[in-house]
Amino acid sequence: MELSVGGEYGIVIDAVGAEQFAWLRERAYAGWVLIMDEETERYCLPRIERYLGSTPLVKIVVPAGERHKHLDTCKFIWEEMFRGGVGRRWCCLNLGGGVIGDMGGFAAGTFKRGIDFVQIPTTLLSQVDASVGGKLGIDFYEVKNSIGLFANPQAVWVDAGFLGTLPEREIRSGYAEIIKHALIADEQQWSELRDIKDIRGLDWPAVIERSVDIKRQVVLKDPFERGIRKALNFGHTIGHAVESYFLHREDRLLHGEAIAIGMITESWLSHETGDLSAAALDDIRDYCLRVYGHQHVPEASFPVLLDLMRQDKKNDTEAINFTFLEKPGEAVVNKTATADMITRSLAYYNSLGS
Amino acid sequence: MELSVGGEYGIVIDAVGAEQFAWLRERAYAGWVLIMDEETERYCLPRIERYLGSTPLVKIVVPAGERHKHLDTCKFIWEEMFRGGVGRRWCCLNLGGGVIGDMGGFAAGTFKRGIDFVQIPTTLLSQVDASVGGKLGIDFYEVKNSIGLFANPQAVWVDAGFLGTLPEREIRSGYAEIIKHALIADEQQWSELRDIKDIRGLDWPAVIERSVDIKRQVVLKDPFERGIRKALNFGHTIGHAVESYFLHREDRLLHGEAIAIGMITESWLSHETGDLSAAALDDIRDYCLRVYGHQHVPEASFPVLLDLMRQDKKNDTEAINFTFLEKPGEAVVNKTATADMITRSLAYYNSLGS
Repeated sequence: MELSVGGEYGIVIDAVGAEQFAWLRERAYAGWVLIMDEETERYCLPRIERYLGSTPLVKIVVPAGERHKHLDTCKFIWEEMFRGGVGRRWCCLNLGGGVIGDMGGFAAGTFKRGIDFVQIPTTLLSQVDASVGGKLGIDFYEVKNSIGLFANPQAVWVDAGFLGTLPEREIRSGYAEIIKHALIADEQQWSELRDIKDIRGLDWPAVIERSVDIKRQVVLKDPFERGIRKALNFGHTIGHAVESYFLHREDRLLHGEAIAIGMITESWLSHETGDLSAAALDDIRDYCLRVYGHQHVPEASFPVLLDLMRQDKKNDTEAINFTFLEKPGEAVVNKTATADMITRSLAYYNSLGS
Repeated sequence: MELSVGGEYGIVIDAVGAEQFAWLRERAYAGWVLIMDEETERYCLPRIERYLGSTPLVKIVVPAGERHKHLDTCKFIWEEMFRGGVGRRWCCLNLGGGVIGDMGGFAAGTFKRGIDFVQIPTTLLSQVDASVGGKLGIDFYEVKNSIGLFANPQAVWVDAGFLGTLPEREIRSGYAEIIKHALIADEQQWSELRDIKDIRGLDWPAVIERSVDIKRQVVLKDPFERGIRKALNFGHTIGHAVESYFLHREDRLLHGEAIAIGMITESWLSHETGDLSAAALDDIRDYCLRVYGHQHVPEASFPVLLDLMRQDKKNDTEAINFTFLEKPGEAVVNKTATADMITRSLAYYNSLGS
């Protein structure tokens, strides 16, 4: 199955194999750069190694984890590319999760003013989220993705087979973006997902394809995030702040776990200050708690969370921007909420823990 | 006078003043970042300072010179932008020569995935060359402009009044690009320039406008340098190598001085292996020697120069690529020359010194 993005590149949702590499070979690059982290080198490279053949190859392995998504690692990648003799007519293959896709894409997009690259996302989160939309970058000045650019890959190869290399908690984390995509744009998928008791039994290629397609359609309408693309921020204003806050604690949350808290609190705001019905709020709340459980957010953290929301790069003014739900399957962008209401939404969330 | 580039941005060739800043103010940016080097802060800022008004402003001053056009300086710019609270809705004004335009543009083009920027080139070289074409970047791994991207500014303000802040040698250096533009695309301007005995008397705004227009038209046809844009490399294959070689010597050459040597040697190659007439070669040789004098290129340097040409990012294979002249006003791209012929062209150049 192939989805096309603006006619510019295709997202292939299929096992990565001979077909994709034949397509790549046809493009006659002078060589390939393969960027991985220590984890994906060990667990994911074996799935594609046999297809690499005799094309000149420069392998670059970086340490795993978001904390390495910074300028020094990027500099190391650029240096390795120079040391390996990489030229303008090479193609970069980014094999890994969001960190590798974002940073490897940024390194490729700026090397000699930009060489081609192909994304091979290996986590559920990167398959349904980072693989579409052309956002590339690194963390800088302790701000996530604060140095980067928009550039499209030549292709994205989404292979659900890589999910077998992931711990279940990682898969559940990525699944939050699938819930989000359904909530903002696909009422039908949302009602189907709600009936799923155990995500381990999901038909992943089908679920991923539908979710990627939602994001693809939103991004096509608004590639530079000037309007409707902000719908994708649903759950992320509060969710990102919660994620940042827990980052430095023992009991840190994965991205999707924080976004689940964001989806509950922002649904509450959508209900209290907007049009979301009480029944829909209850459905979202129940489903997110069922999948993600409950994590108490200390009251002492609320002012810190508010500060983090104000610093978010989407906020230029004092008011904090949100994407609200009107109903499941329909989002509305450019809404705001007061500090008081945000605090109350967090108190609501805490009240759900028994 | 305003030239439009792909309908996307305008190049205003006029004194920078109230009109340009009124246009900028209309765009209602949250603030402006002003990037300068120590020289342009001293000599060029006074020309525009009175127009800055009360818009929130972050001034960033970096050391002057190509040797500071690297990642550490860029990092400093990004950090200053964060410290100054620069957001996505800010605009960056790059006040300076090619280094400031390239590096400031790159910093802006990657800050929070890209903020708007305006180029205010203050040297003749940057006014007729770097101001058009969207090439941005820094030097890395000892390779010029090896990390960067293509991105267009919101506007380019070309003010010949800044030339008064430059030493005459700098102006003569920038003038080489004007000669080059005429030679590759405007036989009429070439024949006019040839009659000029002293460039100090030139009508700069008119000459610059015509030269910028040539580059603009070439870039519009081929923004990513896949074909005809390579015409702009005339004189630069050998010229860049000569420039790099002299960089570490006492008697270093300015860019245009090296390009003059490149134009003579590459015209010789165009004549010996292509269609350029002997009379045209003689004209180009005589004019370049008249403006730039002669600089002996040590024979011992020839192998080094050839190595430098092979490393150029435009060369992926063993053959060295050139743009040749068919006749004044007409260039032909994707030509090659052997090491032997290149060596002979340099010997020819040396023979011209008395």
